[in-house]
Amino acid sequence: MESYTRTARTTPTRYRERARYDRETVHGILDEALTCHVGYVNGGRQVVLPTLHARLGEILYLHGSTGSGPMLTVAGSPDGLPVCVTVTLVDGVVLARSAMHHSLEYRSVVAMGNARLVTDPDEKLRALAAVVDHVAPGRSADSRPPNARELAATAVLALDLVEVSAKVRTGGPVDDADDLALPYWAGVIPLTVHAGTPVPADDLDPSVPLPSYVSDYRRA
Amino acid sequence: MESYTRTARTTPTRYRERARYDRETVHGILDEALTCHVGYVNGGRQVVLPTLHARLGEILYLHGSTGSGPMLTVAGSPDGLPVCVTVTLVDGVVLARSAMHHSLEYRSVVAMGNARLVTDPDEKLRALAAVVDHVAPGRSADSRPPNARELAATAVLALDLVEVSAKVRTGGPVDDADDLALPYWAGVIPLTVHAGTPVPADDLDPSVPLPSYVSDYRRA
Repeated sequence: MESYTRTARTTPTRYRERARYDRETVHGILDEALTCHVGYVNGGRQVVLPTLHARLGEILYLHGSTGSGPMLTVAGSPDGLPVCVTVTLVDGVVLARSAMHHSLEYRSVVAMGNARLVTDPDEKLRALAAVVDHVAPGRSADSRPPNARELAATAVLALDLVEVSAKVRTGGPVDDADDLALPYWAGVIPLTVHAGTPVPADDLDPSVPLPSYVSDYRRA
Repeated sequence: MESYTRTARTTPTRYRERARYDRETVHGILDEALTCHVGYVNGGRQVVLPTLHARLGEILYLHGSTGSGPMLTVAGSPDGLPVCVTVTLVDGVVLARSAMHHSLEYRSVVAMGNARLVTDPDEKLRALAAVVDHVAPGRSADSRPPNARELAATAVLALDLVEVSAKVRTGGPVDDADDLALPYWAGVIPLTVHAGTPVPADDLDPSVPLPSYVSDYRRA
């Protein structure tokens, strides 16, 4: 797979060696992260909202309701809504001997462009199924599909993955040579998203079995 | 403590019953979340970047380098840089019988306003210590303090917590009455941030003890 083309806007001003443009890295981060943060301008002021997303090939779908801010704004934007979608996974806390070398292990993606409102009914159904499957793989086929009323109340934005970059920081602390003998612990505390014991709904029929995608739930 | 004053911009267009304005809720979310997403406008386009933050009273400090985008932009903004800072904690996956009632348990904060560049040396030192302590409590006193060169390369933005809201969704799925008998598992998969076994730096002197804030690390 060809990499994304680096542009001025997707070139970090700092730590350029952490930038990645290969699709495998970008797709992996987008697919693993449960939520994204969507930035857009509304009435001259920027807004950043968390939402659910899903990737199908080179399209990133963003979930919303027809009454939500981005959806109301895109309705008045014939060329689509300019957005910046950012996804961040934190993999660890990096403790260095020096306060200023503290850092995180992380993987992030920034995708920019004009998002369009999905109006084609088939694409909308596909996108919403992808969002549900992004939350729990296989779940869209194991739940009641949307009806017409629900579809009308739900909106989906689509952003073509064109101007996209990832940033990845791995590994332990990088301390100055003069600091190595200081008596401070240094290293990494790994962080993962842990799925606990599933909690059935109060009104769940106890004869309904626990699916493996619930009992074995994991993000990575 | 008085609550934050609700404004048009901090009133959600959807799920208003999930909005919270009390300081205890807002502070708790800001303090627990390891990272935030900062939205700002650069050259007419919005940008959303993840960064580290820390709260001291009613000021939210944002960490950056002097060469990073927001810091370069604020330098040319005498009234401060208009930002939207959003913090999101995901507490669980909510599986409903119907695809469209799938959701997340989450707690988020949105803070808007003009962020100023911190120029007072004492405030900058306090803010940077707070960021380090936000990453690992007590760590700023247990690491080598910043020197003049490091301080010059680091920039801090300060946002007064004035126009702020939280949004909290808890509890299990809310299905339509007609869907309750459908044969699909429904409930919540709780998600937590799990700290794994600390990994010492390759060059760590083995006689340096493991501090309790590392061995007992947790975010919640």
